[in-house]
Amino acid sequence: MDVLITGGGGFLGQQLARELLEHGGLVQGALSKLILLDKVFPRGRFHDPRVEYLEADFANEAVIDQVIARRPELIFHLAAIVSGEAEKNLDLGMQVNFRASMHLLEQCRSLEFSPRIVFTSSVAVYGGDTDKVITDETAARPRNSYGTQKAMVDLLLNDYSRRGYVDARSLRLPTIAIRPGKPNAATSSFVSSIIREPLNGKKATFPVPLDTKVWIQSPKKVVQNFVHAANIDKNLLGNDRIINLPGLTSSIREMIDSLATIDPEAIKLVSYEPDEFLQNIVLTFPRNFNPRRALELQFVSDGSAEEIIKSYIEEEGMTHRS
Amino acid sequence: MDVLITGGGGFLGQQLARELLEHGGLVQGALSKLILLDKVFPRGRFHDPRVEYLEADFANEAVIDQVIARRPELIFHLAAIVSGEAEKNLDLGMQVNFRASMHLLEQCRSLEFSPRIVFTSSVAVYGGDTDKVITDETAARPRNSYGTQKAMVDLLLNDYSRRGYVDARSLRLPTIAIRPGKPNAATSSFVSSIIREPLNGKKATFPVPLDTKVWIQSPKKVVQNFVHAANIDKNLLGNDRIINLPGLTSSIREMIDSLATIDPEAIKLVSYEPDEFLQNIVLTFPRNFNPRRALELQFVSDGSAEEIIKSYIEEEGMTHRS
Repeated sequence: MDVLITGGGGFLGQQLARELLEHGGLVQGALSKLILLDKVFPRGRFHDPRVEYLEADFANEAVIDQVIARRPELIFHLAAIVSGEAEKNLDLGMQVNFRASMHLLEQCRSLEFSPRIVFTSSVAVYGGDTDKVITDETAARPRNSYGTQKAMVDLLLNDYSRRGYVDARSLRLPTIAIRPGKPNAATSSFVSSIIREPLNGKKATFPVPLDTKVWIQSPKKVVQNFVHAANIDKNLLGNDRIINLPGLTSSIREMIDSLATIDPEAIKLVSYEPDEFLQNIVLTFPRNFNPRRALELQFVSDGSAEEIIKSYIEEEGMTHRS
Repeated sequence: MDVLITGGGGFLGQQLARELLEHGGLVQGALSKLILLDKVFPRGRFHDPRVEYLEADFANEAVIDQVIARRPELIFHLAAIVSGEAEKNLDLGMQVNFRASMHLLEQCRSLEFSPRIVFTSSVAVYGGDTDKVITDETAARPRNSYGTQKAMVDLLLNDYSRRGYVDARSLRLPTIAIRPGKPNAATSSFVSSIIREPLNGKKATFPVPLDTKVWIQSPKKVVQNFVHAANIDKNLLGNDRIINLPGLTSSIREMIDSLATIDPEAIKLVSYEPDEFLQNIVLTFPRNFNPRRALELQFVSDGSAEEIIKSYIEEEGMTHRS
């Protein structure tokens, strides 16, 4: 089976590619071709004859035409402008997060079969009263442009699936923690930084109060959930292709306390540095969820903040100091 | 103040224009100019120097550029492809209901002020379990392309209002009953036909079972609500510009019974004629609402099906037979 990953050069795209290449695990059969589309790729490449690198900009509609003309049967659509950047540059966010996604769907519609699409939506589609528990029935009321763009694509994915043009599964991702590498322009980037940087002996700050809660999921579980989403029988999904992934609610304090049990020295490097731009967005992110449907559909979650940190250390092959 | 009505040649656009010309009632001040934009207009025109007819297609982006260049301070955006047509012709629905609306917003954004926009969204954004009570917090889960397109525009209106580019108010309209004139391609057209046609001595059919409930509002109240929406202080709305109008829940049976009390002969002309296409859409329309926010914001509703029928007869100047 031919698979496409848009945003295949990104962190999650690379993790997913590795998972598919090493373990397969797709119900539709063996992986014959894996097209990775992205503007840039990390230096270390997969040496696997099934992998094809396409270095191009997803924002360019001609690129989308070209890649869909390759007739991928399964598309993981991960390409996106992150939340902070989408808020600062509306045109760029609209072009990549929304218009290009709409064009992707139009191109899929022109195929004589219905490609399966796994899309990375976001809990940034919710906003407003963050104390309320978000259920599968709660209205998307984004308080940022990124969430708006993701919510619009969700609507299209449902409609195009209902019409039989595609067979979509949209996963509303929690904040990913812990991302390896460097801080990025996601407004939630600090959630990873406050663990990752101190473990590397570097300082890190958090821009929101210590008791701010976040809804998180480890990259490992997210990748498992991507594959699971690709494998679910569409009859189990019916007309509703949007799924709130089962994250974990943790406060910044709990994350730092968990870090302390693993590396007591590390937490000295973490401090509060209020940031109004980030607070205005992050404090509107919901953090209390009842992801009933996702659990019924057997999507997976993390057990605790400590477990997430330990799994990060293990995956990064780090020798922690404690 | 300069006002634009897109879809100004349609039934609701004409009623609204008449209301504004005859009664004004806008808090922003006297009406200086009323631009009516539509592809076609009814034969009888308003003889008022403030009215300007622009006979052009809203689907054409150059037309939108031209009309926004006139810098209207208040825009009633009513132009749309109705639900049945949008379901049958996805490209047309996407172009008019979604893409042209998005372009309208982009053009508004280019102005150096934030025009106020009153948009006609629809309860067709809801779908699925129609027995559930829809509240202001219920997720939009359209089961038709028309509702999908309206829900996407709602999201954009909220985001562009939050960013200060426009000052929008999106009204999710119930089914309008009773529309004068002829049946149209709206999937809910029969709701008007079963009253209007028999009163004119003509036969009419309903495509769904007699006990099917619908969520309705009279044109008179809708027009009142349009003006009210234009007048509400934006501070009362905050970041959420979407309002479920307070309709009235009525079954087809209740409507026909009400007709019987007014014209016992008329109901002999009404009969059940199942239609699968219409059932697939209409039976997914929600009919139980708790429009709390709209009531708090003092939007108005009708008292009963009988009241709606009597008001229709009065407005049409008909002499009923009973």
